[in-house]
Formats: sequence, C-alpha cells, structure tokens
Amino acid sequence: MYTYETTVRVRYAETDQMGYVYYGNYATFYEVGRVELFRSLGFSYKALEDSGVMMPVLELHSRFLKPSRYDEEITVRTYLKEKPTVKIRFDYELFNEHDELINTGSTTLVFVDIKRGKPCMAPPDFMERLEPYFDKQ
Amino acid sequence: MYTYETTVRVRYAETDQMGYVYYGNYATFYEVGRVELFRSLGFSYKALEDSGVMMPVLELHSRFLKPSRYDEEITVRTYLKEKPTVKIRFDYELFNEHDELINTGSTTLVFVDIKRGKPCMAPPDFMERLEPYFDKQ
Amino acid sequence: MYTYETTVRVRYAETDQMGYVYYGNYATFYEVGRVELFRSLGFSYKALEDSGVMMPVLELHSRFLKPSRYDEEITVRTYLKEKPTVKIRFDYELFNEHDELINTGSTTLVFVDIKRGKPCMAPPDFMERLEPYFDKQ
Amino acid sequence: MYTYETTVRVRYAETDQMGYVYYGNYATFYEVGRVELFRSLGFSYKALEDSGVMMPVLELHSRFLKPSRYDEEITVRTYLKEKPTVKIRFDYELFNEHDELINTGSTTLVFVDIKRGKPCMAPPDFMERLEPYFDKQ
Repeated sequence: MYTYETTVRVRYAETDQMGYVYYGNYATFYEVGRVELFRSLGFSYKALEDSGVMMPVLELHSRFLKPSRYDEEITVRTYLKEKPTVKIRFDYELFNEHDELINTGSTTLVFVDIKRGKPCMAPPDFMERLEPYFDKQ
Repeated sequence: MYTYETTVRVRYAETDQMGYVYYGNYATFYEVGRVELFRSLGFSYKALEDSGVMMPVLELHSRFLKPSRYDEEITVRTYLKEKPTVKIRFDYELFNEHDELINTGSTTLVFVDIKRGKPCMAPPDFMERLEPYFDKQ
Repeated sequence: MYTYETTVRVRYAETDQMGYVYYGNYATFYEVGRVELFRSLGFSYKALEDSGVMMPVLELHSRFLKPSRYDEEITVRTYLKEKPTVKIRFDYELFNEHDELINTGSTTLVFVDIKRGKPCMAPPDFMERLEPYFDKQ
Repeated sequence: MYTYETTVRVRYAETDQMGYVYYGNYATFYEVGRVELFRSLGFSYKALEDSGVMMPVLELHSRFLKPSRYDEEITVRTYLKEKPTVKIRFDYELFNEHDELINTGSTTLVFVDIKRGKPCMAPPDFMERLEPYFDKQ
C-alpha cells in the first residue's frame, strides 16, 4: 500500500448557499490528492499525458460525513491499496482542522493510449516506483 | 416510481484538456436533474429551503461509460424509485445526442430542519404529490 | 449591430455562501450568451474549433449591479456592436426575473489559427452572415 | 501600498478543451490572492464575515496575456494601492513558472453590513493594520 497526504484550503468559489463545500467539488479535492500522490513518487500526471497516456475516470464514489466550510484547511489522505493494472483505484479520506473525518471516497481510472484510443497498462517506470510498496506485502 | 427527463448543454467551462466533461461536473448535471424532477411535481427546491428545510448530499456514485463533449445536449433522466423518508435517493441515466448511455449515477440526500439542525421527514405536501406514483405499486 | 437573448437558470453549484452567484461564474453565463448568439446566426463555435480556429479570451470586464440568486432564470442579452476583425467584442446585459439589470460586461476574443498558432481573420462565412446587420449602418 | 504574493497550482478541473485555464477561473485565483493578502496582515476574511461584514464584488477586469496550463504553479501578486473606504480595490499580476506575466486584473469590492444590508466603512482594526503602508506615502 502507498499513502500520501496533502492539503487544500476551501475557496469561497467552492462553497454553496448552504455554507458548505458543494458536493461536486470534492471530485477536485480527490484530483489534487491523487496528483500529489503521483508527484510524491517522482511521477507527474502532466508528463504522463505529454508522453501519450491519459487517465479518464471510470467510477466515483463519495460519502459526505460532515460538511466542510469556507477557509478550512482540508487534509486529503490518498491511498493506493492495490497494484495498478490497466486500471488504478485511489481511496480518499478527508479530515478537517479538528481531525474529524468528513468525507471518504474512491475513484477508479483507466490508463488510455491517446493515439490508439485504447486502454493500456500502467507505464513501467510508474510500476517500478510502486514496487517497494507492494512487494513487501 | 417517478421519472423525469431534462437536458443540459455542455458548456466550454465544463470541459477539461482531455476534451471531455470534467468528471466532477456530472454532480451538477445530477443537481439539474433532481431539481427539474421536483419542479415537474409542482415542487420547488428553492421554496423548500425558504421554508426551513435543506437537503445536503450524503452519498454520490457515478459510472462514466462514455465521455461527453463540448456543446452536446445531454439528456438527464432522473428516477425516484423508492418513497422518500428522512432520506431521498435519486438515480440518473445520462444520454448523448446519439441516444447512447454515457453515465449512470445516484445520490442520496437527507431532509434537514435548518433551525434545529436535525434530519426531518420529507415535507407532507411533497409526499402527497408523490403518492400516485408509489401507491400504484 | 446584432443582438441575441438567451436564458440560464442559476444552479446551486453556482451560488456561494453569501447566497449569491459567485462572481467568477458570470464568465460562464457570458460564454452561454455568445455561443447562443453564434448559433442564432447558423454558426457553431464547436464547428469553428473543429475547422481549426479557436477563440481565446483577451479581455473580460464585469460590473455587478445586483446579486443573482439560486434558481433565478437570468436573461443574457448579448450584443455584437462592431464588425469583427481578428478580434471580436461581445457586450452583455443580464436581467433577473423582475427585469432588473443585474450585471453588465464585455469580453474581447481573438480568432486563432490552431495549426499556425497565430491570430487570423474571422471566418468568411461568419462575416457573410453578419453583413446584413452591419452594412445597414 | 501593500503587496502580497501567493501561489496556486492549476488543477485539471480548471482547464478547458483548449488546454488552457478557463477564463472564468482567474476570478478564483484573484480570490485566493486577496484572501491571502488579508491573512498576511493577520486578518481573516472568514472572521470578517462571521463578525457581520461581507464583501461582494462590484467590478472585475481581466487581461489575458498568455495562457496558463495544467499543473503550472502560478504566482499571484496582489496589490492594495489605495487606502480602502467603503470600497476596496485589489490589483493582480499573475506569473507563470518562467516568470512571464500571463494575466493582469483588478477587482473592486464593497464592505456591507450584513444585518443592515448596507455598505459600511472598512473595519477599524483592518484599517489600523494597513496604516503603516499608506501613512508613509
């Protein structure tokens, strides 16, 4: 398993008139979580796309346990629990400043060869970097 | 069961650099779907909130089957399959202009009494309007 | 001059915790305004892009006169006051359901040849369709 | 004059199918800029709202000089050039990672007493903190 933590500060633009973060905006927080997990492995999603592989989302699940509010610094803990294949699944836990779990979620994405328009395996260098975290198990 | 169909046209703002609708924006399409389902029953979410009841989202699920693209007119078919209690669940099917199913999803929301800050039953007049669609079953 | 009117209904996603439409979202309403103005001339922005011309925005101005609120149907009146060249300027007036002017704005965009990465003249067929509205002046 | 610099990293959600940051999203970058300027003065916009004063935007201007792209770290330099009264104007300069000026803008906001629904002067403690930067001139 590989885990990485990052933070996002809630922007005014992300709130709605309930005074909460609009539920659709958690998808963006998840995006920040998995992109920073990639970066922490010395891997860049941008570079991946530039190299001809994109990662559209296949599935999204979210549970909203407590609201998050304007200006709060939210901790996004992203988990890679299984070794990726053509698909990769991320799990998320979001915590507010009082360390309360406010949201859990998951996304499944697929590696797609842009030119061929077809699913492909996760890039070898990415898999190599992940090896230490999964071989141990 | 009660079903209602409405359409949304994909805005440039909603696309991402993959040329697809960003996955977080489907939550907004679902919102349009359920609000228009409400309106079709002579019921307004805005009036509900003005009367002291709000409806935060508890759960969101999405499956992305095919991408949707800029300027497409997406049909959002919203289903109310079960009689609401303190919670209400909506199911969604989204179709593109070629009548292809591109996305399925569901959201579960809870009725909350704003003043008391506590869950409450669905408003009686809303339940009354729904009765014909569920009593028959 | 050429003018076109369309409407947008304010989504919950577009409100902020002030209970108003977030100021950045008017840019999207302007987008809807100018795209529908294009469509009313038998012209499609999507087709334009597919033909190799894109239109990035160079300038944006907005005055926020009155707030707009959730679920309001906003009328977006878009004006093309001057004949386009390599640039095209749109002016906007937004009205709420009480016919009150709530927002005025303008955007200047540039026609760009995508392959060459350079500004280009407005497409001839677009200019032809506009001719009746400007030759009369 | 008082100036403050902060950074935002471009999210995938903020790009559009041109591969650029959608023009409406700069308003959010400006929001981050002025909120962090506030915070750098020991002042919190959130606390201001909690104390009964909100700050709707009256005017927005933007010039888009160069596109910004996915994953770039954008520097937002925010300027407070004039002493606030009932209104406050912020100027912005945005730079990409190559230190190129990509966007300039300004926003004018008004202090509003939420209870009375009327414009009010900038809060005294905020004005005090600003004094050193304006008295010198």
